[in-house]
Amino acid sequence: MERLNNLKRIPRTGWLLCNVSSSEVEDVAQHTFDVTAITLLLADELERQGKKIDQGRALSMAVVHDWAEASVGDFPYTALKYLGPAGTKKRVEKRALEDLFGKLPKREKYLALWQEYSEKRTPEANLVHAADYLSMLVQAVKYRERGNRSRELDELWRAVKKDLARYMKEFKPVRELVGELDKRYSA
Amino acid sequence: MERLNNLKRIPRTGWLLCNVSSSEVEDVAQHTFDVTAITLLLADELERQGKKIDQGRALSMAVVHDWAEASVGDFPYTALKYLGPAGTKKRVEKRALEDLFGKLPKREKYLALWQEYSEKRTPEANLVHAADYLSMLVQAVKYRERGNRSRELDELWRAVKKDLARYMKEFKPVRELVGELDKRYSA
Amino acid sequence: MERLNNLKRIPRTGWLLCNVSSSEVEDVAQHTFDVTAITLLLADELERQGKKIDQGRALSMAVVHDWAEASVGDFPYTALKYLGPAGTKKRVEKRALEDLFGKLPKREKYLALWQEYSEKRTPEANLVHAADYLSMLVQAVKYRERGNRSRELDELWRAVKKDLARYMKEFKPVRELVGELDKRYSA
Amino acid sequence: MERLNNLKRIPRTGWLLCNVSSSEVEDVAQHTFDVTAITLLLADELERQGKKIDQGRALSMAVVHDWAEASVGDFPYTALKYLGPAGTKKRVEKRALEDLFGKLPKREKYLALWQEYSEKRTPEANLVHAADYLSMLVQAVKYRERGNRSRELDELWRAVKKDLARYMKEFKPVRELVGELDKRYSA
Amino acid sequence: MERLNNLKRIPRTGWLLCNVSSSEVEDVAQHTFDVTAITLLLADELERQGKKIDQGRALSMAVVHDWAEASVGDFPYTALKYLGPAGTKKRVEKRALEDLFGKLPKREKYLALWQEYSEKRTPEANLVHAADYLSMLVQAVKYRERGNRSRELDELWRAVKKDLARYMKEFKPVRELVGELDKRYSA
Amino acid sequence: MERLNNLKRIPRTGWLLCNVSSSEVEDVAQHTFDVTAITLLLADELERQGKKIDQGRALSMAVVHDWAEASVGDFPYTALKYLGPAGTKKRVEKRALEDLFGKLPKREKYLALWQEYSEKRTPEANLVHAADYLSMLVQAVKYRERGNRSRELDELWRAVKKDLARYMKEFKPVRELVGELDKRYSA
Repeated sequence: MERLNNLKRIPRTGWLLCNVSSSEVEDVAQHTFDVTAITLLLADELERQGKKIDQGRALSMAVVHDWAEASVGDFPYTALKYLGPAGTKKRVEKRALEDLFGKLPKREKYLALWQEYSEKRTPEANLVHAADYLSMLVQAVKYRERGNRSRELDELWRAVKKDLARYMKEFKPVRELVGELDKRYSA
Repeated sequence: MERLNNLKRIPRTGWLLCNVSSSEVEDVAQHTFDVTAITLLLADELERQGKKIDQGRALSMAVVHDWAEASVGDFPYTALKYLGPAGTKKRVEKRALEDLFGKLPKREKYLALWQEYSEKRTPEANLVHAADYLSMLVQAVKYRERGNRSRELDELWRAVKKDLARYMKEFKPVRELVGELDKRYSA
Repeated sequence: MERLNNLKRIPRTGWLLCNVSSSEVEDVAQHTFDVTAITLLLADELERQGKKIDQGRALSMAVVHDWAEASVGDFPYTALKYLGPAGTKKRVEKRALEDLFGKLPKREKYLALWQEYSEKRTPEANLVHAADYLSMLVQAVKYRERGNRSRELDELWRAVKKDLARYMKEFKPVRELVGELDKRYSA
Repeated sequence: MERLNNLKRIPRTGWLLCNVSSSEVEDVAQHTFDVTAITLLLADELERQGKKIDQGRALSMAVVHDWAEASVGDFPYTALKYLGPAGTKKRVEKRALEDLFGKLPKREKYLALWQEYSEKRTPEANLVHAADYLSMLVQAVKYRERGNRSRELDELWRAVKKDLARYMKEFKPVRELVGELDKRYSA
Repeated sequence: MERLNNLKRIPRTGWLLCNVSSSEVEDVAQHTFDVTAITLLLADELERQGKKIDQGRALSMAVVHDWAEASVGDFPYTALKYLGPAGTKKRVEKRALEDLFGKLPKREKYLALWQEYSEKRTPEANLVHAADYLSMLVQAVKYRERGNRSRELDELWRAVKKDLARYMKEFKPVRELVGELDKRYSA
Repeated sequence: MERLNNLKRIPRTGWLLCNVSSSEVEDVAQHTFDVTAITLLLADELERQGKKIDQGRALSMAVVHDWAEASVGDFPYTALKYLGPAGTKKRVEKRALEDLFGKLPKREKYLALWQEYSEKRTPEANLVHAADYLSMLVQAVKYRERGNRSRELDELWRAVKKDLARYMKEFKPVRELVGELDKRYSA
């Protein structure tokens, strides 16, 4: 529980590379809050539209998805290509989680949640990924509105939207939200 | 969704009154992350001990419990006695939530969650309250470990433990955690 | 005296709602400095133009006008409509001030100053209100110059200018200053 | 008026030399707020004890006393001995103020206030000096309470108390306040 | 060695006067890092183009050039004209360095490095000056990209480019870099 | 050159894990400044004691030693064991540097400097490592003096001293400095 407190101090390095100052950078705890809240709102909207979502599992997955960063920090995306073969980051995070959960009776449950999230095969996992990317768009709009005009922010915006494409197809409300955020970012 | 982004900037005023600097003060988004994570961990532990908890509802409640602060901010506890008759704060928050949820199809669900949280009658509501208070103890330990020796922090510590008493009776793991945190705070 | 030190840590919540980061947000002590300095400059200019102003009283009022926030914080303006009938905020602040001044021999004087400020009936009270609003315009220009392009900042700008209208009629130098600031904000 | 906004960004360098982090350091605007508020409280207490104080002039002096720093910054006290013959700092500040007030009709009044403050010959000037030093003791207590145990903070504490000695003789309430703060600092 | 730690807390006041917030302002240690890194890169490029540079001396000079600020802070450029006759700032810094190096066996070496830097007569000294100014242009581009549109930043930009003119003549790579930065600033 | 500006925003994650707040955490640029300055002071002292050091190379190595972090960030030490076989971190950094230096004519020189630093075989490399560790002790003393009493800071202190052992044997002034810092940390 105390290790998780670290997440309030671990910055999301992607923003630092977009010339966001370290005093304004989002931390992992704030990010997770956003992802969890968006997961809840999306899950409800999807249910209203007839999709079946296991909300308890989706929310748990959102809460857990970045816990490894309490030990390994947030690798900047520019670091990924140097880490080694695809899947290295996942392996690193998995080992960190196994240690972090070491003594918890429910460790298998949390590892399974994280595994499900990483594999992107269930609607719940995809929902949380969509929420993860949406939270980045919202935050990017906020940084832009605050004045940020860096090339890197534009590149990040485009990259996130590309990653969102498959979830925009899968989930209608994601499609609508991205449309609105696009208008805000370009305003 | 964007309004919720405000919570990353709304400070938890209680700490400011304990001489925590504004550059180190926890914000509402970070706090909600803690509460949600602790709710998840406690819920699993309680289930292991045979208690029946609706995790989806408990987590949703944790996520939602401070959303009103996106509009009304975080009243310092020193403000409560000036607000008027008991229940004023709740009425203020309820009105704010009604506006915040104004257009959402699921507004009734969120209001009901918040209402359940406020009434402290279900195990899920009590669990989230316990998590809320536990997160304050963890954060107080962190501020103390960072050097804070203010009288106000000691008073807040005692007040939170008093508020926790009923949940310590209700939930065994809460009892154990408070014991450990007490040792850390007094170290 | 020590309670007033809190004001250095209480953020002015209005800016937070305009997407100003918590590391850049003005605090109540900084704001009061501005209001007091502007009050002094305006009072001198008005006297030069033949108006009679009791400077000692005007300055004392400026110094005192936000002391209640040491106990109750700075309600975001979005909170006001949820607080209850008009005048609720004043009642809350009055009770807080009565407690704050509890032991001071001169408590009645300070309460009277705050009361005079709240009632907006004397030239001194109006002068301090004008200084209060002008200080917000100056700060808004600074945030805008630093890059902030949020809709909320524009709305706040318009709202403050509306509140300033009656003081622009009453005080010529206020009229001139608003004109200059308007150019700066729109630049 | 806009130049004065700089004071919200000029740090009080003395604290930086006491190992206070730049994110926690008091700025000149916050300091001036403290000095002005303490001047008001002391002036009232002294009047109650029968001393005659021109409050308007004392408050104006408090507001104005650090305006030069908007142009020249806050020289660290460790810099003073390198600046040249005694009185160099005053000469520097005077020239800066003359420029700052360049176009103001009331420039002579402000220069006179600053001159009176610098000469420490009137009760009003002495009162503001006492408030200036008291505000440093209050802030030092706050830094200490937050954990600061640097040798430099202790040295600054002793140096400020030495500077306060003559005002403790002149003003009884100053004597009492220093006694209380001494207890707090040593706690 | 410990005194130098102060440089991590001494802000570069020039940026504060350009409406950069105190939470985003560069400090002297960060600035010195930039100057040293740019000195290294420039020295290598110049050597490749056939210029002879004593890299060890140039790097040492870059490291040392702002050490006086550990005692005297960073005078805002707006303060310079009030300091007295030309050369006052140098005299102040020299005395501060003499004290700072008081006990070091190599004090004469460091004073000589600083002296050489100040006199701008050797290629190494000029190189470090060029790096000093270039680092300011890079930082200005970063602040602009983050939203800053203050008149003062534009003025500083022009002033720095003027100071760079002689080094642009002397060093071809400086000329090229300024050209590129100019495009970035105006983008 | 601009990529290096990132280093002003990349936090040194080790401190974050010691409960240092993100607003007080040292960044890589500040750290490199310290290492370079200490390298210079140590090199001079060693030369005085008769050791032969190539100062230009040692200083260049100090400047360059953390440049990879502009792309890959600062891996928390708690992450190292999850990264894979020993040497993984070095491989990651090397690839990042190769990209970073991609177009520079002198890329081979910088890679060689970094390689020499990593292999710890020359007096210059060892000197920079000693300076690297010493800078951490100085910073830890500063955090402790500011109030930090975390177990993690104590552990880091011991770990750094262990890493310093071989350099304490090799360099007498390092031995003396560690002795002094030990007294300060335990005070």
